Amino acid sequence: MSRTPDTWILTAHSPSLLGTVDVITRFLCEQGCYVTEHHSFDDRLACRFFIRVEFRAPAGLSEADFRAELAKRVAPFSMETELTPPGYRPKVVIMVSKADHCLHDLLYRQRIGQLPMDVVAVVSNHPDLEPLARWHGIPFHHFPLEPLDKPAQEARVLEVVESSSAELVILARYMQVLSAELCSRLEGRAINIHHSLLPGFKGAKPYHQAYLKGVKLVGATAHFINNDLDEGPIITQGVETVDHAHYPEDLIAKGRDIECLTLAKAVGYFLERRVFLNANRTVVL
Amino acid sequence: MSRTPDTWILTAHSPSLLGTVDVITRFLCEQGCYVTEHHSFDDRLACRFFIRVEFRAPAGLSEADFRAELAKRVAPFSMETELTPPGYRPKVVIMVSKADHCLHDLLYRQRIGQLPMDVVAVVSNHPDLEPLARWHGIPFHHFPLEPLDKPAQEARVLEVVESSSAELVILARYMQVLSAELCSRLEGRAINIHHSLLPGFKGAKPYHQAYLKGVKLVGATAHFINNDLDEGPIITQGVETVDHAHYPEDLIAKGRDIECLTLAKAVGYFLERRVFLNANRTVVL
Amino acid sequence: MSRTPDTWILTAHSPSLLGTVDVITRFLCEQGCYVTEHHSFDDRLACRFFIRVEFRAPAGLSEADFRAELAKRVAPFSMETELTPPGYRPKVVIMVSKADHCLHDLLYRQRIGQLPMDVVAVVSNHPDLEPLARWHGIPFHHFPLEPLDKPAQEARVLEVVESSSAELVILARYMQVLSAELCSRLEGRAINIHHSLLPGFKGAKPYHQAYLKGVKLVGATAHFINNDLDEGPIITQGVETVDHAHYPEDLIAKGRDIECLTLAKAVGYFLERRVFLNANRTVVL
Amino acid sequence: MSRTPDTWILTAHSPSLLGTVDVITRFLCEQGCYVTEHHSFDDRLACRFFIRVEFRAPAGLSEADFRAELAKRVAPFSMETELTPPGYRPKVVIMVSKADHCLHDLLYRQRIGQLPMDVVAVVSNHPDLEPLARWHGIPFHHFPLEPLDKPAQEARVLEVVESSSAELVILARYMQVLSAELCSRLEGRAINIHHSLLPGFKGAKPYHQAYLKGVKLVGATAHFINNDLDEGPIITQGVETVDHAHYPEDLIAKGRDIECLTLAKAVGYFLERRVFLNANRTVVL
Repeated sequence: MSRTPDTWILTAHSPSLLGTVDVITRFLCEQGCYVTEHHSFDDRLACRFFIRVEFRAPAGLSEADFRAELAKRVAPFSMETELTPPGYRPKVVIMVSKADHCLHDLLYRQRIGQLPMDVVAVVSNHPDLEPLARWHGIPFHHFPLEPLDKPAQEARVLEVVESSSAELVILARYMQVLSAELCSRLEGRAINIHHSLLPGFKGAKPYHQAYLKGVKLVGATAHFINNDLDEGPIITQGVETVDHAHYPEDLIAKGRDIECLTLAKAVGYFLERRVFLNANRTVVL
Repeated sequence: MSRTPDTWILTAHSPSLLGTVDVITRFLCEQGCYVTEHHSFDDRLACRFFIRVEFRAPAGLSEADFRAELAKRVAPFSMETELTPPGYRPKVVIMVSKADHCLHDLLYRQRIGQLPMDVVAVVSNHPDLEPLARWHGIPFHHFPLEPLDKPAQEARVLEVVESSSAELVILARYMQVLSAELCSRLEGRAINIHHSLLPGFKGAKPYHQAYLKGVKLVGATAHFINNDLDEGPIITQGVETVDHAHYPEDLIAKGRDIECLTLAKAVGYFLERRVFLNANRTVVL
Repeated sequence: MSRTPDTWILTAHSPSLLGTVDVITRFLCEQGCYVTEHHSFDDRLACRFFIRVEFRAPAGLSEADFRAELAKRVAPFSMETELTPPGYRPKVVIMVSKADHCLHDLLYRQRIGQLPMDVVAVVSNHPDLEPLARWHGIPFHHFPLEPLDKPAQEARVLEVVESSSAELVILARYMQVLSAELCSRLEGRAINIHHSLLPGFKGAKPYHQAYLKGVKLVGATAHFINNDLDEGPIITQGVETVDHAHYPEDLIAKGRDIECLTLAKAVGYFLERRVFLNANRTVVL
Repeated sequence: MSRTPDTWILTAHSPSLLGTVDVITRFLCEQGCYVTEHHSFDDRLACRFFIRVEFRAPAGLSEADFRAELAKRVAPFSMETELTPPGYRPKVVIMVSKADHCLHDLLYRQRIGQLPMDVVAVVSNHPDLEPLARWHGIPFHHFPLEPLDKPAQEARVLEVVESSSAELVILARYMQVLSAELCSRLEGRAINIHHSLLPGFKGAKPYHQAYLKGVKLVGATAHFINNDLDEGPIITQGVETVDHAHYPEDLIAKGRDIECLTLAKAVGYFLERRVFLNANRTVVL
């Protein structure tokens, strides 16, 4: 699971066709690359193929040549590939509102090296979490939401994302619905944490909904955002038991841990190139 | 948790009033009863009080006198009480259709003494599970459902329940919706197992719904039935992780274990007098 | 996870060498076999390579030719391979004593097709579980243990295993220590369920040990047997929370469910060819 | 579970005697106190009684009179009681070495009010975590351990504990064995987190031990310290599944979350007066 510092990751997906595994593994072998972990999955209902390989390359491997040759090989399979060199750290923007637990948790994990990412900015519609971001040395942008001016605010958010070349946006309890346009711009690269076991309790105040319903389990769902509120492809979910003695504020308190763990797990999967979109579902290898 | 063979159980609930705990514990003390486990909970939002006490009574205690005196004491509190003598085994009717896993599990637990109940009948709209019931020496009633004659079929079901003085009906994967009338007749004494984490995936084929949604957890919910389909008060819920490689049939297979364990747990709580109705929720002490 | 009825399984392990993945996948591709799931793992500390592939073969594939050619290809890698054709059901012997829960659970899972195995015999040092075996139509052998005659009894056990060509022996709460000789004869093909979280609470009465220690979790461990009592390679472990109110008999009751689930899971992994020995540990792909 | 700001907590334990519940509940009723949660447990093997009550007191209750009268009432039962007024926050000293995850987690929970305690000092044998303590505004004491001078160092630790009237010492990954004398001075009020599922993998480097053993679950144990290393009464335990792909550094990473959650849970139980010593075990009400 942990990788040596010289480990590359190659992922790919394509329609289901004979030879998809072989085209990858044969190429790696010919290049003198040593496969340390390999996982492929063929979805027989969707007829889609997914593969993720970790490998060590021989000294002197030319990344450019490797990419060029690989592209040639996989072309007949309509395969999309992604190559991640050793030590690569994706740039990430985190969006928050007032609740700090997920931000606190993500920045800690970044700091100790558990989440290999570079958080280039924290963006919020409230000023509250600036000290926390600053303590970690990360730029904080306060973009307040004026009642009639969501498009302008979202334009500023998008400007931060694009100017920093962030490849991932984490909505770490950002309590605003994104516009359809922003959702579309961030498709496949924005992960939200919703504080319920979706599809149960979509929308506002899910813990209060859960209390009223009298459920005996509460959970959290990390998912890619899309145009449908709380309906994007699910990456992972966490859960804990509760009982009659949990008032809404107890569910909220218990939920904080689940949200942190579930979001961090999903982000980790993304950074390790384990997550693939598969229509409105995900494959996690 | 396990009880000595001379242990009684006393439960009660009432509006929240000063003195509700004391009226019970003082009475028990005066009667020379030794409390071995005591749990009370006051719901400060619903303003309802719930209590469950296990105790050992002195030799020669008159149950009739105990009940009469207790009734007098608690009268000022509008308290409803239930007293369960040592060794009492509730009579139970189990309803099934074709899937046998929950029935198989419940009858095994009864046989080894883990569920202290007397299953007086198994009722089904299909003949398939008769051999299983017979092997355990339990009468099996096949009441087929004719398209236009649900009322007649349900009348036969109710006749079995009432003539046997069953105090609990277990819907162990009974795949028919009960009429409003039967639901109402069985209110508070019929437990259903639904194969999803309610309120997610109500209704038919929840595992197929779960597959299409791409959830990463599946579960089961044991609940009292009421007039709203899959909406009755929840007693307990179970859950397991799944991934992209679980096709619908894999969810069904995985779900069988969760359903068995969740239903058996809920039935155990009921038999041990741990479950209280609290409007559309439950308190489990 | 579920497989179509025409799915083959190929597993292999070898020292870590460049080309191990490629030799398998290239051969499969050349044979026209379509890989539906592929998982390989290279243990960088042990320098051992493990691979498991599920694939669909083209019509008319000759198994004999496939095996012969595969053997030639992998020879340079000191690779041991195992090929499992579609629909193959391993023969299994189950050993029990008096506790019936694991046997009851395994035979049920066999009957509904969840464990694709043929139980050819149940062997016991006590006569108690004969009716259960008979109900499932499985031969039952009562081989009592005479104080000074363990070798003779074990010879009879081994005779059943070998004459039936059983490739797996399941010790489903068989409460006798096997001799070093029998352990050695069954190495890598006998799975035991121990009712504790090994390495905690080895030996007799683990639930009583757990009670005295005051642990807040109890569990079960499914492992291959070897010459060291309760020290063989672990396949999987299950766990549940407990509290101060669990007396030893409550731990035993709670443990039954964990034991059944943990043993069934381990047996399922074995039948699906997911388990590899890796010195005194296992790899489960 | 959450309490209104005017809630008191009363706990008590005594030998098992008729009248122990009644003496508490009758007294509370006479004082006009309203019980909101009540839990008692009688250990029938140890013959010890444990009780925990949350209640709201009438306006104007004199704490001194309440305590005096209570003491008189319970005297015949050899009962030890502890009364915790609303809003009481125990003083706590946290001991650490170099690993910061537990400290980071505990201070965060204190700051957001989830752990109602006042951390009066952080003590360490290393200087590394001073910035973290300082950021939270908490005094940090660096007491290095000189090879032959453990008694002097421990005297300084004890001086901090006693001069601050700390009633709880948390060993949040303090990587030194305490002397028998210090253990004895802190008995019943020092909680340690050990990074294994005790009694498995006592002592140093438990994750490396777990890796070598090939376990499929790793966990953490929060326990009171006593003179036997890693043998004190267990308060709570946490666990997660792992597999063959987890190298020791992966177990360490995964373990951090379990350690944080398990320790925070145990500290929460302590602060809420839920934990009772019961010989070498605990009762958690």
